[in-house]
Parts: sequence; structure tokens; C-alpha cells
Amino acid sequence: MTNAARIYLDNNATTRVVEEAVAAMLPLYTEEYGNPSSAHAFGAAAGKGMRAARKAMQGLIGAESEAEIIFTSGGTEANTTAIRSALAVQEGRREVIISTVEHPAILQLCDALEKYEGVKVQRIPVDAQGRLEIEAYRAALSDRVAVVSFMWANNETGVIFPVEGLAELAHEFGALFHTDAVQAAGKTPISVKGTAIDMLSLSAHKFHGPKGVGVLYLKKGVAFQPLLRGGKQERGRRAGTENAPAVTGAGVAAEIAAARLADDAPRIAALRDRLEAGILNTISHCTVLGAPRDRVPNTLCIAFDLVEGEGIVMKLDRAGIAASTGSACASGAVEPSHVVRAMGVPFTAAHGVVRFSISRFTTEDEIDRLLETLPAIVADLRALSPFWSENGPNLPGQMPAAQ
Amino acid sequence: MTNAARIYLDNNATTRVVEEAVAAMLPLYTEEYGNPSSAHAFGAAAGKGMRAARKAMQGLIGAESEAEIIFTSGGTEANTTAIRSALAVQEGRREVIISTVEHPAILQLCDALEKYEGVKVQRIPVDAQGRLEIEAYRAALSDRVAVVSFMWANNETGVIFPVEGLAELAHEFGALFHTDAVQAAGKTPISVKGTAIDMLSLSAHKFHGPKGVGVLYLKKGVAFQPLLRGGKQERGRRAGTENAPAVTGAGVAAEIAAARLADDAPRIAALRDRLEAGILNTISHCTVLGAPRDRVPNTLCIAFDLVEGEGIVMKLDRAGIAASTGSACASGAVEPSHVVRAMGVPFTAAHGVVRFSISRFTTEDEIDRLLETLPAIVADLRALSPFWSENGPNLPGQMPAAQ
Ligand SMILES: Cc1ncc(COP(=O)(O)O)c(C=O)c1O
Ligand SMILES: Cc1ncc(COP(=O)(O)O)c(C=O)c1O
Repeated sequence: MTNAARIYLDNNATTRVVEEAVAAMLPLYTEEYGNPSSAHAFGAAAGKGMRAARKAMQGLIGAESEAEIIFTSGGTEANTTAIRSALAVQEGRREVIISTVEHPAILQLCDALEKYEGVKVQRIPVDAQGRLEIEAYRAALSDRVAVVSFMWANNETGVIFPVEGLAELAHEFGALFHTDAVQAAGKTPISVKGTAIDMLSLSAHKFHGPKGVGVLYLKKGVAFQPLLRGGKQERGRRAGTENAPAVTGAGVAAEIAAARLADDAPRIAALRDRLEAGILNTISHCTVLGAPRDRVPNTLCIAFDLVEGEGIVMKLDRAGIAASTGSACASGAVEPSHVVRAMGVPFTAAHGVVRFSISRFTTEDEIDRLLETLPAIVADLRALSPFWSENGPNLPGQMPAAQ
Repeated sequence: MTNAARIYLDNNATTRVVEEAVAAMLPLYTEEYGNPSSAHAFGAAAGKGMRAARKAMQGLIGAESEAEIIFTSGGTEANTTAIRSALAVQEGRREVIISTVEHPAILQLCDALEKYEGVKVQRIPVDAQGRLEIEAYRAALSDRVAVVSFMWANNETGVIFPVEGLAELAHEFGALFHTDAVQAAGKTPISVKGTAIDMLSLSAHKFHGPKGVGVLYLKKGVAFQPLLRGGKQERGRRAGTENAPAVTGAGVAAEIAAARLADDAPRIAALRDRLEAGILNTISHCTVLGAPRDRVPNTLCIAFDLVEGEGIVMKLDRAGIAASTGSACASGAVEPSHVVRAMGVPFTAAHGVVRFSISRFTTEDEIDRLLETLPAIVADLRALSPFWSENGPNLPGQMPAAQ
């Protein structure tokens, strides 16, 4: 399979780095390879791109000041830092509120906080369309809550939570509000200025920047304790030699993402809608997961009754098409993902979930090639199922198929 | 100043990335940009270089198995993970032993553990040559100690601690032993197999790999708790999308460092000795800091009486030569570094410390150009000092100069 012939529809897992970013990074490896904290010309040269990157991140999320940007090694570190800091700076508050569909970086951290550090974690459910149960959230709030963390957009379904409003509710109880915006940045407009959002996480490799760069936005005035201490980097908020090349590349990617968002979003949404309609028209018994109107434009999460999502992904891979059954970190697992389970997707559909995630580089031709390939794959797999007949599902005891 | 004309002697701050590493990284940005955890061809391609890198790191430190290698975002994260894990897995032990000359990544973490988490920290002093006071260490050990952390080589002076023996002492009291080998790897042979070293930290950008990659070596069987939780990466020991490009590059750098060590070390030591002798022959009243025979080969830390190290570094910079007054993270500070203070360097010398750190890319010609430049710089600065005369130091009240 030549590279050109391959089709990459797993952009929520990670994305191709834009050439402009790579070009900006290259000289920092072998020429201007200094330590940005050093007091000489090599250091100064290495620091330039980082300053531009800070501005670019500020722009991408509409922050008030570039001093609110803390570079980290990725989304996981940004999330961990945010939650741990919020607990550390409010010793009297020992509760955390999250949703049941957060990324594992939040879920597993909270499990550990509960198990080892006596923190109470309240997990707010979502409805069948993946939308947060606001009343349950309201009921969970109290002045014992240190921090509320709800993701801006879900990595599996693309469903967007109304974080600005959710943040205001948190503030009514004096709790800090963090949002994991890893899957939102570059896909939907973000402007934290003037909102009640205190902290926000990004990961550059999700918007065509390099891996190994995250951002923790920390609103001016919000108390903070670092996760990594040592050198004075990032104004003492994140120690460790600055990753000047990758941060510089991430900045270039952020600038491009922000500049193109207004053009990219509708074009990508049109591709997604074409794919969605194409599948629904040609393949019976499948269900789109996630509230149709509350999704980021690039994500299509779809459940095929009575097939294994893993099987579809494998056969697509053999045809040169990359897709996923959910989050990359969960792949390999045979169980439906925690998101699918949280939405209460019926058993017959839950195992057949496939996520297609589109990027700025995706073409209409690629979508059409997927649409030509997919029906036969699903039909072949269904033909192997004892619960499938020519007329559709054929379940023992009239077990209802997914609606 | 053209690039070729510049001389980089700040390799303990960070190093130039070897071309072979950059070449290995490049395709992973724009072609094989998949997520190594993904179950498709893009993911598989991205994972290949990481497997080679794990082997290379195993080789560089003589570990028993590549499963003992955990990739992190750098030395700071590796150090933090090690200390926090050691405390978390031994709840009954609430003491930590470190030296007074550890890197800020360890020092500041321990300050915070003491201040916020009730951990007792014992800081073992060094002698005037920067060698650990072993008797003080022995006296500090008890079965209340969770972990001992001593650096393998000091970043400012290059002084090597006899960590294998220090580790055995720790084990006599059932404590875990961690070593920060960030400044040792690629400079002096390391072989952890069969030693009592339980954990060890590396940072790739110190041995011609890219920034943003660290290693935590975790000996097989040693209990562990991750700092970053979430995805199943690194066998559940460090969550976050794998930084496949940078880790791949770090692996290439590690392989080269290990393969060339036997040739590089004596050549680099000869350059360092040439520099040291040249300075001592042409500039009066200066002192080499750190035990001469217990140093990594690339580091020369030298104190010039009655001048400011910052002044020397600035003037060298104008002449196109990059050096440092100590660790990059401390630069900008006017106070002598914690290492210089810990060694009890006399006041008249303590402010005049400059660190030259050599690499595989340093040439004899560069050393000679430095030797041509430096005497005039020191003389010019001394000429400005009220405490300096043609005959040398001219101190009020016969204050003794540094010996
Ligand atoms: C001895 C030592 N330990 C730890 C570190 C921290 O490594 P990093 O900056 O890659 O996090 C450094 C370098 O800055 C160092 O010299
Ligand atoms: C919603 C969300 N949060 C956090 C992360 C973690 O980011 P990273 O893997 O860069 O640490 C991801 C991606 O893996 C994600 O999709």
C-alpha cells in the first residue's frame, strides 16, 4: 500500500503534523539547539519560537494573556496538573466532579485520588445521546467541591458539553472549573476570556502539531501548585528543559488551526455529513452515536448492529483505511468503551462501534472510497454472524435490536 | 556571527541533536504519523522506532530487560515519578534522603514534599571537592526511609557519586534507591544490571537526542505507582500518547552514545584537560571545582577570583562562545548556585564560577579559540574590580583569596 493510497480517518487519535510546523522545528534540532533558559545566543535563538507559540495558543483559545499559557508534555499531564493543583490549593475541599465519559486521563486519575488519597469523586452520567445530565450535576455541587472537570468535546462521539454554562454553576459553589478541550481545539471556536473557565487542557498532536506538547491554560489569578517542580521554566509552574522545537512546531500548528477554523469547520462538517448519509443509505441497522447537532464537525461515531467494531477496523486497515473503535488507548480491548456503556447503547450495537475522525487533509474522494469499501465489509462480517439473516437481525427470543 | 564560527560549550544544559536522530524522526511527523497505540498500519509504523528506542535505552544503561524502560517527557518528570512512586508504595516510610547538590528537580520536589505532605527530608552534605559525606549518609539511614536519591554525576561540577555502593547501603535498611543519571549517561559507563539501583533517570537531550524525552528505569519487581494515569501506554506506567517521533530519535541518539562511549570519553577528557591546563597556565587566581579524578570527562567547572561569572559568560557570548555559570535553570540568578555554596567555595571565588561542558562535536580548534579569548576577558573584568591590583587580589583586611 503506497502512502498516497492510504486513507487516514483516525484524526481523534492523532494527526499528521503540518509541514510548516516541521519546517519551523528542524533548525532547532541541529542549529539553534540551545536551552531557552540559557543566557547566551544559542539560548536566545531557541526561545524565540516558544514566545510565538505562547501567543498562538493564547489566540487559539481566546485567552486574555500569554502568561496564562503553561506548556506541558501533553493533554494527560495538563489534565493531571489541573486536577491535582485544584485540590492542593483548596485544602478544605476534598471532592471532585467529573462526567462518566471523560478521557481515561481524568477517569483513572480520579479513581486513584479516591482509592489512595481519600478524595470523593462524583461522576455525572450522560443521556443516550451523550449529553450531560445537568440536573445530576446541579445536585452534586456543594462547597465541598474543589474542582469540576468536564470535557469540551468527547473523543469518541465528538459530543460537545456546554462548558461555559457548566463553569458558571461551579463558580456558584466556589469550585474551580477545568475543561479538557483536547478534542475541541481547532474544531470548534474556543474563547475562555470572560468565562468562568479557570483551567483548560490542550494537546498539540490533535490539531496537526507534534506529539509531546500540551497546554494548561491557567486563568490569571487562579491559585496553582505545579506537578513538576525544579527549574524556573514556565514561570515556575512547570519545570523541565523547555521542549523548544516541539513547542515551536505546536505554535505554528495552533496559528494555522486558528486562522483556518472558520473555513475548515464547515468543509469538514460537510465531509462528515456525506460520510454519515452515505453509510446510513447503504448499510442497514446502524446507529449514529452522539447528539447530531451537538458534535464537533470532524467526528462520526457509528454502531453497526451484530458485528464487531474491531473486525470492521481490521478489514478497513487491510483496505488501507485507518479508523478506530474508540480511543486509541482503549484499542485492543474487546469490551465496549466506557463512553458507549455510559450512553447505554444496546448490547447488539455496542460491540459494533466504529469512529471515523476527519481532518483538514481529508478529501471527498477519500470519503467516497470509504463508502465504496465499507458496505461489503459489514455485509461479509454479518454473513458470519449466527444472529444475522438476509432480512436483518435474527435474534433469539425477539431480543430488540438497537433502535 | 555565522553558525560555523560559534562555539558551543554548554552541553550540560542541552546538546545538538545528531543528524541520524533527526533523520529517523522526520518521517514520523508527516508520513507515519499514527498513534502507536492504534490498531492499524499507521499505528504499527509509528511503534517500530519506539521498540528500537527501548532496546537502545536498555543498552545505554545496561538494564536487564527493555520492559524496565519507561519513557517520560524528560529528566524532571522521571525524577518526580521515581520519588513520588517510592513514597506511595511504602506507606509506612515517610523519609527521603538526598544530597545537597541534587538537581533542582529533586531539591524543589523534596522541599514541597516536606512543606505540604509531611515527608521528612534529610540532605546529605558534600565536601569541598563535591564528594558525598558518606558517614553523614550512613547516619541518616533507617527503616523509616522510603527512598534515597543521589545523582550519578553533578550537572555543575561533573563530580561522580559512587552510586552502586550508595545503593547497597540503602538496601541494608530496606529503602529504595534512585539515581538521577541525567548527566552521566553517554559520558561514563552505566550498568544497572546486578546493582542495587532500583530506579534511574535519563534525559535524551543531554546526549544528543531531542528534548521532551526522558527515561525512568524501573528495576523488574520494584513496586510502582504512576505519576500520570490514563491510557495503557508504557504498560500502564506512564499514560499519554506516546511521543513516537522524539522517542525514536532519542533511541538513535542512545544507540550512538553507547556505541561511541569508549572512543568519545577519552577524546573528550583530553579536550577538557587541555582546556583546564590552558586556563590554569594563562590565568592566575582560579580554582577548578570538583574532585579532579571523580568527574565525568566533559565538564570543567572553574572559579575565577574576584570576577562575576555572569560577566565572563556575557563577554564570551559576544565572542561567539556559549558557556554557563551553572545550571541553565538557575541562570539569571546573581547568587552562587546551591552546588557552589554546598561545596563551601570561598566568597571571593564563588561569584566567579563558569562551567564549560564539552561534547562529541567539540574540536581542539574550538578549545584553542576559547583559550585565546578567555584571558583578556578575565583581565578586563578584573581591571574593573576595586579589589584587584596588578599583583593580584587586594582585599581589605587581608581576606584570604580562594586557595
Ligand atoms: C542532573 C540533572 N537532573 C535532571 C535534569 C532535568 O532534566 P530535564 O530538564 O530534561 O527535565 C537536568 C537537566 O536539566 C540535570 O542536569
Ligand atoms: C479528550 C482527550 N483528553 C486527553 C487526551 C490525552 O492527551 P495526550 O495523549 O496528548 O496526553 C486525549 C487524547 O489522547 C483526549 O482525546
